[in-house]
Amino acid sequence: MPTEFQFLDRLREKYSLGRIGDDCAVLPKDARTDLVVTADLLVEEIDFRLDWTRPEFVGHKALAVSLSDVAAMGARPVWAMVSIGVPEKIWNSDFVDRFYEGWFALAGRHEVELVGGDVSRTPDKIVVDSIVAGETRKSQAVLRSGARPGDLIFVSGELGGAAGGLRLLMNGSRSEETTKHWQNRLIDRQLKPEPEVAAGRAVGSRRLASAMIDLSDGLSSDLFHLCRASGVGAKIFRDLIPLDPNLAGLVQDAEQQFQFALNGGEDFKLLFTVAPDIFFGREKLFEKHSFFRLGEVTANTEIIELVAPSETSVIEPRGFRHF
Amino acid sequence: MPTEFQFLDRLREKYSLGRIGDDCAVLPKDARTDLVVTADLLVEEIDFRLDWTRPEFVGHKALAVSLSDVAAMGARPVWAMVSIGVPEKIWNSDFVDRFYEGWFALAGRHEVELVGGDVSRTPDKIVVDSIVAGETRKSQAVLRSGARPGDLIFVSGELGGAAGGLRLLMNGSRSEETTKHWQNRLIDRQLKPEPEVAAGRAVGSRRLASAMIDLSDGLSSDLFHLCRASGVGAKIFRDLIPLDPNLAGLVQDAEQQFQFALNGGEDFKLLFTVAPDIFFGREKLFEKHSFFRLGEVTANTEIIELVAPSETSVIEPRGFRHF
Repeated sequence: MPTEFQFLDRLREKYSLGRIGDDCAVLPKDARTDLVVTADLLVEEIDFRLDWTRPEFVGHKALAVSLSDVAAMGARPVWAMVSIGVPEKIWNSDFVDRFYEGWFALAGRHEVELVGGDVSRTPDKIVVDSIVAGETRKSQAVLRSGARPGDLIFVSGELGGAAGGLRLLMNGSRSEETTKHWQNRLIDRQLKPEPEVAAGRAVGSRRLASAMIDLSDGLSSDLFHLCRASGVGAKIFRDLIPLDPNLAGLVQDAEQQFQFALNGGEDFKLLFTVAPDIFFGREKLFEKHSFFRLGEVTANTEIIELVAPSETSVIEPRGFRHF
Repeated sequence: MPTEFQFLDRLREKYSLGRIGDDCAVLPKDARTDLVVTADLLVEEIDFRLDWTRPEFVGHKALAVSLSDVAAMGARPVWAMVSIGVPEKIWNSDFVDRFYEGWFALAGRHEVELVGGDVSRTPDKIVVDSIVAGETRKSQAVLRSGARPGDLIFVSGELGGAAGGLRLLMNGSRSEETTKHWQNRLIDRQLKPEPEVAAGRAVGSRRLASAMIDLSDGLSSDLFHLCRASGVGAKIFRDLIPLDPNLAGLVQDAEQQFQFALNGGEDFKLLFTVAPDIFFGREKLFEKHSFFRLGEVTANTEIIELVAPSETSVIEPRGFRHF
């Protein structure tokens, strides 16, 4: 059977779909503006579990994952729709009210307007489809496909925290019960991720990036997606990958911490490439935004090299996929 | 517990949502154009059953219900997204390929471009969220709220066929097995409805309607929604309601046929109101499009009167709702 990525490639080819395959589709709006749109499906038991999270967090996260896609285009989010399907027993609880409380709290901070959606019944499980639209200046949406050999690779924040939080939840920790700061931080990264809306706009409005993607599946997978779309390779330096400092509470072994950062999903930081002449002279700006330099783009198409002090290895995309 | 309509009213009020509550949200696009957008969730076992339908029909219907919402704004559909969640066993079958075949066959006829969406895994049941965007000339989207007392009420086609098809399916009929023309027609109305895209554009581009809604829940319910949004009432004439002629094969009793037309859902015809001075003089145009006149708008807010030869009664909305 095809993986979900192979399936989408085939669909794109079979039906000549030119706008499929980036974090958002880019559509013309008016003479000065493009619209970007994205949709993200969240399914109970697959993407969240009610005994691990709170209804407010499900609402928050549904919006956050789509805001992250809009940020990855360098765009400003503007409006959204939510389609939600719930079984009868959930309808008769406070779940839906609390879901929207979480959704609107995040939407308010980013001035996103809810304009529509759907409410439906499901036989058993909760399902949410989150749709967000944003705007960029004409032809300035940042695609995955613009990276060129020699470009520098950056990430907008520390990695591995969401995967660390998932590990804690799988091991039975719950945020109400934990007393340690690092535990709460890691669980928050998993259940209530903050989309990089400000970073995305900073990158987009200053035209800093040649290519960008959000880290939803994991660094190894998403860097591979970006390289594939751009027809390039990448060399990243192990010691430059910024680890979430709270991981040190979870595992002491440096290699294990690094694996969370390399292959863990759902950090929702932005990964982007920058031409050297754009970067040099602007080091302070990158520092101000906590953009971490990881490595550089190479001409070795679809080859991701990991440079460690002792050896250089080729890594495989090992992040999350549904199929 | 609130009904889904009460819930949406409360959400609209609590969060001051001005664009919620019509068939589509209306958003500014450029100086001459507005964008309309809609999302519709279809859930296995609630909205369709695999043993009643075919994957191609599920794809067709997912798009059709959203095209119907766009048509109900008098708009032209332009682009779409599909989010689809399926369990592993369905992913490993030909379902998804055939779903998209049905989707693209309908999309091609209406020149709708697939621009994005999502693919996800579900624990058990199939779920589809269909998102369609359309365009209208600036400020000319036809809302539910513009009906005025004295306006005439029209429907764009015959009613009750989809509910008749549902009855056949519930009684065990399947389209592969039926030999009678009327049975196949009714089952097609239920499984593979044709959205009224051409009728919607005819009404919209000529500015014929003061208000419009698509008949998804059923005539009694959708007329009530339109009256409520407009702050008016309606008087419809029983003998003017156009019955799907294939219903005569299913039930001989005229009252039963009429109940399918009045309270059955999913006919996806358009219900609209027309100011008398717009209608008179254009009778031929309405006839050409098979627009049937049902009655007229009254000042009796939210009261729907049904005028039969023998008596006039007030009817309640009895169409479909999820909660």
